[in-house]
Amino acid sequence: MPTTLYLDDLAVGRKFVTRSVTLTLEGCKAFAAEFDPQAFHLDEEAARRSVFGRIAASGWYTASLSMRLLVEGELTIAGGLIGLGGEITWPRPTYPGDRLRVETEVLAVRVSESSPDRGIVTARNQTLNQRGESVQTMVVKMLVPRRAAV
Amino acid sequence: MPTTLYLDDLAVGRKFVTRSVTLTLEGCKAFAAEFDPQAFHLDEEAARRSVFGRIAASGWYTASLSMRLLVEGELTIAGGLIGLGGEITWPRPTYPGDRLRVETEVLAVRVSESSPDRGIVTARNQTLNQRGESVQTMVVKMLVPRRAAV
Repeated sequence: MPTTLYLDDLAVGRKFVTRSVTLTLEGCKAFAAEFDPQAFHLDEEAARRSVFGRIAASGWYTASLSMRLLVEGELTIAGGLIGLGGEITWPRPTYPGDRLRVETEVLAVRVSESSPDRGIVTARNQTLNQRGESVQTMVVKMLVPRRAAV
Repeated sequence: MPTTLYLDDLAVGRKFVTRSVTLTLEGCKAFAAEFDPQAFHLDEEAARRSVFGRIAASGWYTASLSMRLLVEGELTIAGGLIGLGGEITWPRPTYPGDRLRVETEVLAVRVSESSPDRGIVTARNQTLNQRGESVQTMVVKMLVPRRAAV
C-alpha cells in the first residue's frame, strides 16, 4: 500500500519518481486524431516537411501521459492530485519509441490563509526521455490537505 | 478555405474564436480512465465526497479539448499550431454537460533574432463554459513563420 501524503509530509526538496512508459506510433496518432489533428502528428510525409522531421507526439499527449505516470507514481497525495495550474514548457518534442518518466521535486509549501486545513504545494514535474533529456517541465500548484484536517 | 496566417498577420490585440463542444460523461470518463485515473473523475460516489461534488473532467481533458477546438478554429497559422509552452490555469472545474469554446487574443509578437524567418507569438487562449466563465486560461508561446520566409 502506498503512503498517503499530506501537506505536512511534503517538505521542500522532497523528490518522487514514476515508472516509465514507451510512446507508440499508434498511441501518438490516436491521441492526435482526437485532440490535436495536425498533419505533423498524423502523416509521415507531412511530418517530414515540418519542423519535427518525423511524426511527433502532441505536447498534450506528453502532458496527459505525464499525468497518468504521476497518478500511478509515488506522489500519493491525500484526496488525489488536484492541480490549480502552472507553467508548462516543452523544450523538445517527443517521438514514437521515446520512453518517458516523470521526476517530481517539491519547490514550495504554503498553508492556506482562508482554509488552514489545506494548502498549496508548488512542485516541478519534469518529464524525461530515455536519454535523460527534459521533454516537458510543469511547475504546478496543487491543492493538498493537512494531516490534522482528516 | 481558411486564411493562412503568418507572424506578419498577428497584430497584438487580434482575436480569434472557435466553435463549441459539449462535454459528455462518457468522454470525461474515457479520458480519465486512460490519462487521469483518479476516483473523482471516474466514480460518482467518490466524486461526491471530493472537492468537486460530482464527476469532474480532468484538467488535461479540458486542455486537450481546447487544443482540438483551436486546431479547428480561426487561428489557422502557417505550418500549424506549435506551442513551446506557457502558463496554464484552471480557475474552476469542468463537468459533463458543460459547453466549452476558446477565445484567443494575441498578446505579443516578436521576430526571432537567430532565425529572422520566424518568431514567437504570445497569445491568451481562454476556455469558457456556457455561462461565459473561464475554466482554463493558457498564455502560450507559439512558433510562427514570417510571410517572407515561404
